[in-house]
Amino acid sequence: MSLALDAAAQDLLFREAQTANTFTDEPVTDEQIQAIYDLVKFAPTAFNQSPLRITLVRSQEARERLVKHAMGANGPKTLTAPLAIVLSADLDFHEKLPRLFPHAPGVKDAYFSELAVREVAGMQNATLQAGYFILGIRAAGLAAGPMTGFDFGALDKEFFGDGKQKSFMVINVGKPGEDAFFPRSPRLEANEAIATI
Amino acid sequence: MSLALDAAAQDLLFREAQTANTFTDEPVTDEQIQAIYDLVKFAPTAFNQSPLRITLVRSQEARERLVKHAMGANGPKTLTAPLAIVLSADLDFHEKLPRLFPHAPGVKDAYFSELAVREVAGMQNATLQAGYFILGIRAAGLAAGPMTGFDFGALDKEFFGDGKQKSFMVINVGKPGEDAFFPRSPRLEANEAIATI
Repeated sequence: MSLALDAAAQDLLFREAQTANTFTDEPVTDEQIQAIYDLVKFAPTAFNQSPLRITLVRSQEARERLVKHAMGANGPKTLTAPLAIVLSADLDFHEKLPRLFPHAPGVKDAYFSELAVREVAGMQNATLQAGYFILGIRAAGLAAGPMTGFDFGALDKEFFGDGKQKSFMVINVGKPGEDAFFPRSPRLEANEAIATI
Repeated sequence: MSLALDAAAQDLLFREAQTANTFTDEPVTDEQIQAIYDLVKFAPTAFNQSPLRITLVRSQEARERLVKHAMGANGPKTLTAPLAIVLSADLDFHEKLPRLFPHAPGVKDAYFSELAVREVAGMQNATLQAGYFILGIRAAGLAAGPMTGFDFGALDKEFFGDGKQKSFMVINVGKPGEDAFFPRSPRLEANEAIATI
């Protein structure tokens, strides 16, 4: 069964790409991140709500504040990556809905007037966008090291003091360094993940 | 700024792909879904927990049980798609961790003995995998129509009576039909989504 996506692209995004644990010193530029964003921004979210926010941790001082909240080996890994990125959901995404979903401007007030609803929808859709973004990093020829082992409540207080963003993932980005990859772990067989009713 | 991913692949996955609202009659085969799965299964999840479960709603009877729980226009759309798929998180994903994460078999008991923890982690990682899966559908030359406007609590009772799976998305899949696409809605500019600290 052949796919429409060419084999080289399949390898780049999925088959040969792996989570990187070490990186070279080569910098990751703002232009690279912008090119990734300008590609993956087109992938879908509910009502086009687009809640994902991407915080590039560039200064040494900010990097140190970030790793204070890392668990286990995530701290040292994050200190040595050329770029660390915090992904968060904007809980005020509804303010932009009249522009992002212009054919139904009433959606903002009909569905998203309550913070608790926005928190669930925003986290779900930002997580979906995180999946697109990880593949976008690979599309740029870079390796991603996504991590959820952080104290995100503390991170929100550290970086998003106004309470309007909820972080949920940190991604180290760069060119893979020495011994960057663990051996590929097994995946579930198709018949374990797929059922028919 | 050019990406490593070739332009045709960028178009196929992101720039020219859009959420489809109508479909042709052309069937979507089990082989196509398996090929999609066998590609996107390699994308990362935390501890390789791989909680996403993919339920192909093939029988007319199951399709009717599905659309009972759809909101608004999602019901009629879902009735006419060649294939409707329910995505869910397996809340017992931890049972497979010793096989999926063999270098640290203790993770299962150290982190995932509690259902409440598995529910949060499982939903987050299955949602990440949903992002990969939507792009995988496009990689197969098919159009995806992902929807979150369903009563998922009722859907779980309908299809996953044992309480071990939590559904969160339904995706219509097929070749786009007549007037399949709404005009592309605006996206946030890079400087609205990306910040630097």
